[in-house]
Amino acid sequence: MIRQTRLVEVRQKVLKQNDVVARELRGQFREAGVFVVSLVSSPGTGKTAFLERVLTTLQTRHRVAALVGDLATDNDARRLARSNAPVKQIITGTVCHLEAEMVRSALAGWMPEGLDILFIENVGNLVCPASYDLGEALRLVLMSVTEGEDKPLKYPTIFNTADVAVITKMDLAAAVEFDSAAAHRNIHAVRPGMTVLPVSAKTGQGVDEFIAFLESRARESAPSEKAIGV
Amino acid sequence: MIRQTRLVEVRQKVLKQNDVVARELRGQFREAGVFVVSLVSSPGTGKTAFLERVLTTLQTRHRVAALVGDLATDNDARRLARSNAPVKQIITGTVCHLEAEMVRSALAGWMPEGLDILFIENVGNLVCPASYDLGEALRLVLMSVTEGEDKPLKYPTIFNTADVAVITKMDLAAAVEFDSAAAHRNIHAVRPGMTVLPVSAKTGQGVDEFIAFLESRARESAPSEKAIGV
Repeated sequence: MIRQTRLVEVRQKVLKQNDVVARELRGQFREAGVFVVSLVSSPGTGKTAFLERVLTTLQTRHRVAALVGDLATDNDARRLARSNAPVKQIITGTVCHLEAEMVRSALAGWMPEGLDILFIENVGNLVCPASYDLGEALRLVLMSVTEGEDKPLKYPTIFNTADVAVITKMDLAAAVEFDSAAAHRNIHAVRPGMTVLPVSAKTGQGVDEFIAFLESRARESAPSEKAIGV
Repeated sequence: MIRQTRLVEVRQKVLKQNDVVARELRGQFREAGVFVVSLVSSPGTGKTAFLERVLTTLQTRHRVAALVGDLATDNDARRLARSNAPVKQIITGTVCHLEAEMVRSALAGWMPEGLDILFIENVGNLVCPASYDLGEALRLVLMSVTEGEDKPLKYPTIFNTADVAVITKMDLAAAVEFDSAAAHRNIHAVRPGMTVLPVSAKTGQGVDEFIAFLESRARESAPSEKAIGV
């Protein structure tokens, strides 16, 4: 019992400290006119493949960059760098999520001049990242058609903290007999009215719709006194 | 800095306490002649579908049961119960892994008489479960062909703590252009010599081989003075 209480206390302190840093970051992003989008999902949902496709497209009309969290390798950063957008890896070691302080450190002296949109790809994990605000304006939770339609019911917290659900690997939907109606029902059971965007990084399905959605959200959130490039 | 040090201290205490309970559990399992197998993987790798198939087959010749961890639902327990094996759900709330104490509590007053093999399906997570010994004799790490061949490099700790790698959803290997040689290479880069078993819960591919492997391991680990049913 004692160890439980102590753990909770320390955890709350870490989360509170994270919230303070995230709030500061959010203010700085807003002031700089940077629209910040984070991505969370299981390992293997296809965050990196999707983001590579999005960066490649956005890159031609906006100033975009990405931070990517991983436990141990810089594979993802190398994949994303093929889009020609500036990309920086955050290696978390054994930590199962990104924290606002890691984002701040990674951006110090690195954040590209005149940035319009910054993507932050979290560590592949449907549990831990839920509790950590990174100062983002929009949080995407991704689930792939291969994972099972009940993921929102099993990991409700992460779906609750996200703004948009992206269903990836739609090119495999038929092969895995993906039940789209059930997936939507489960997402909306956890978060009624949540926007759901089906995409495929392989075929490009839904990518234009996703980008249009993103640009419209970025425009809405831009401070009126600044003309940001979206 | 101070918060980091305190967190590490508390975490070590929790892990140490977990190890004590796990050791006790392992002794009890050994004495009772129960071979305990745990399963870890990402959410959506197909632990439950695979385990349902394995339980259904084993059920006809051994006394088997399963504990299944999940954050929020008892969906998995209901699916596994279709095998007719005794199944009990452990709801972890916001905790991203099972702990030895949760296993002990779940078994108290429930462990079926004369059990041969107990499966413990962990919460879907490739990070947190790595640090928690559950008293199991064999730990399986599952990865699906849809997740990408580099998972072992990106989540080395979980592969290091596991005894066997199971590659699931082999029926989708062609559709996702799964590179089996690369997957093996990455697994062995992290854990040289690790047994790798490709399976499909859908077609049954590899399930007999998996069961033969399991039975042989169970026989090897059985204390000589007891004749367990495997």
